[in-house]
Amino acid sequence: MKFSIDKKDEFSKARAGVVETDHGKIQTPIFMPVGTVGTVKSVHQRELEEDIKAQIILGNTYHLYLRPGTDILHKAGGLHQFMNWQKPILTDSGGFQVYSLSTSRKKSEEGVRFKSHIDGSYHMFTPEKSMEIQRFIGGDIFMAFDELTGIPAKYHDAKRAMHVTHRWLERCRTWLDNNPEYYGHKQTLFPIVQGNDFKDLRQESAKYISDFGAEGNAIGGLSVGEPEPIMYEMTDIVTEILPQDKPRYLMGVGTPWNIIECIALGVDMFDCVMPTRNARNGMLFTWNGVMNMKNAKWKDCFEPLDESGTSYVDSFYSKSYVRHLFNANESLGKQIASIHNLAFYLDLVRVAREHILAGDFAQWKEQIVPQLKKRL
Amino acid sequence: MKFSIDKKDEFSKARAGVVETDHGKIQTPIFMPVGTVGTVKSVHQRELEEDIKAQIILGNTYHLYLRPGTDILHKAGGLHQFMNWQKPILTDSGGFQVYSLSTSRKKSEEGVRFKSHIDGSYHMFTPEKSMEIQRFIGGDIFMAFDELTGIPAKYHDAKRAMHVTHRWLERCRTWLDNNPEYYGHKQTLFPIVQGNDFKDLRQESAKYISDFGAEGNAIGGLSVGEPEPIMYEMTDIVTEILPQDKPRYLMGVGTPWNIIECIALGVDMFDCVMPTRNARNGMLFTWNGVMNMKNAKWKDCFEPLDESGTSYVDSFYSKSYVRHLFNANESLGKQIASIHNLAFYLDLVRVAREHILAGDFAQWKEQIVPQLKKRL
Ligand SMILES: [Zn+2]
Ligand SMILES: [Zn+2]
Repeated sequence: MKFSIDKKDEFSKARAGVVETDHGKIQTPIFMPVGTVGTVKSVHQRELEEDIKAQIILGNTYHLYLRPGTDILHKAGGLHQFMNWQKPILTDSGGFQVYSLSTSRKKSEEGVRFKSHIDGSYHMFTPEKSMEIQRFIGGDIFMAFDELTGIPAKYHDAKRAMHVTHRWLERCRTWLDNNPEYYGHKQTLFPIVQGNDFKDLRQESAKYISDFGAEGNAIGGLSVGEPEPIMYEMTDIVTEILPQDKPRYLMGVGTPWNIIECIALGVDMFDCVMPTRNARNGMLFTWNGVMNMKNAKWKDCFEPLDESGTSYVDSFYSKSYVRHLFNANESLGKQIASIHNLAFYLDLVRVAREHILAGDFAQWKEQIVPQLKKRL
Repeated sequence: MKFSIDKKDEFSKARAGVVETDHGKIQTPIFMPVGTVGTVKSVHQRELEEDIKAQIILGNTYHLYLRPGTDILHKAGGLHQFMNWQKPILTDSGGFQVYSLSTSRKKSEEGVRFKSHIDGSYHMFTPEKSMEIQRFIGGDIFMAFDELTGIPAKYHDAKRAMHVTHRWLERCRTWLDNNPEYYGHKQTLFPIVQGNDFKDLRQESAKYISDFGAEGNAIGGLSVGEPEPIMYEMTDIVTEILPQDKPRYLMGVGTPWNIIECIALGVDMFDCVMPTRNARNGMLFTWNGVMNMKNAKWKDCFEPLDESGTSYVDSFYSKSYVRHLFNANESLGKQIASIHNLAFYLDLVRVAREHILAGDFAQWKEQIVPQLKKRL
């Protein structure tokens, strides 16, 4: 993997860069649609590429491990081949999903034993196991296995989890030194900064992760319900320390305005289920604010779905029609809204990049953020 | 509407023709995907046109009347504009849906009073009301309001329902004489032959409907659970009588082999929810037989979904991947299967048409029907 920076903003920590993988280039800042179980929900791969213009997508190790399983993925030649997506893929480590989805779990120094949310079967994730699964999946970028604490947490627990995360990172490295890639393309490990909402822990973790010397770094354990100012403050502290010349990935963030704010704090990569999950509930993000398509006010509004939208669904379908689809609980409504929201998120980071290159990003941010938050 | 016949088969009653509407030409025999509530479930309009190559779709009057309602449809400029589908549309009369979906109904000479399956509200459909709703929807072809009896039924009841259907047809005509189209394009009424599984009633009804002198005619009340030989026999009797120079529409039929058999009996138009409904349950129709995508046998079969398929999903996705999507209950599985099945049904009638034109239809039918029925 290579990373180059085309331009740094003068008035914020924003950067416009390019990440190069064996499956192609990614222009940063970038948003990565979440393809949980090997599918970005309700969206065809062709739509992801041509209409949404996704440059990289995310796969969830926890989900892919349970279904279809590493055996099938290995036989298929990895996730790229299995789902026929030939652009870059990033996989998470499974840590967060075990934390948030499995029905019971037991943590130890060794790893996490958990119960599948699908069939109740027991499984064990360790740093080594997470690396092994992610080798089978074959993502271009993959994540170190970390331990999370929710916010708020006791200082003592957050510190312990951070140190576990650091020790597990060393075990990931050891395992990887002896187990090369399966599919002929390079996989790049991103370690994860933890530390909850404690400044000193975030600083200590950011230093530790920086010293690890990876080709890219991630910030984890945020966007778990904490107030936005806390999320911004922790991100700011960490990007002060993480190396300038490596891409930075803020995991699980967020709303359109969260993304713009964190680009200003020096983040290059984002992922979040929000554009797809909220789409399925009828919530559309646009340049002019947020629309709830279940609202009866759109009943006889025959305007295009989103006049400022870049994807074909925005001009092809009307607000009235999409409102009708949600009202009648028709799956086409979810499909349209998912394409719209993801295309909007990709447009958002593309336009942010243009403003970084043009040198007026900070100014643009002040004007656009309040607009993005409006309720339409 | 115009109808011309390019070729009649020498060894069966099959015909290859062209129906011309104000929204374009339809090459017959044709299959019409069912767009229940103004959407062919799980399928984008763009996919309908470009991948499935649908030439005409069907809208359900009962569903569209309840949601979005005629007020919205009228304001939108009709269903074509509302859903942005610019090719032909056919609407049913609401009779069958009231019969099969509403939670309670009371029939009289006047019409049918029924309870909505959505909110339990009471409504009344009469021949005049059905015409009025179908004027608001604005389909290119629309159906007379008929009364149905299930099979088996008592002769007495079947005869009564047939006579009601004939009387209601006259009321449709009277209403239409005084109420022209709303949207500037022509709407053509198709009356419906009833008569249950009684030969003499079918003959009487077919004569009555023929004498009515419509530009196209339909056969109703079949594919309601009767054995296939009965369906074929009734269709055969009716097409003996219906005028040669008008298109014939067999309502609600059927499996791929039903369609081929009924093309041989002189039917030109078909509709059925089977390709989309079965798709959502993982059942795929192909030239080589029927596949259940939920079956574990496809788990590590990385071949294309359907090597003989004509739509992009057939070569883009593998059997293993689609099986995984159904196994994980991911909506993309339903989307892929719906596109596949509809594209197959359109391919089926297109190839049938080619064989009619080539003069070897009957021969081809004998060979293809057993193949279509195979379980893969
Ligand atoms: Zn590859
Ligand atoms: Zn029109």
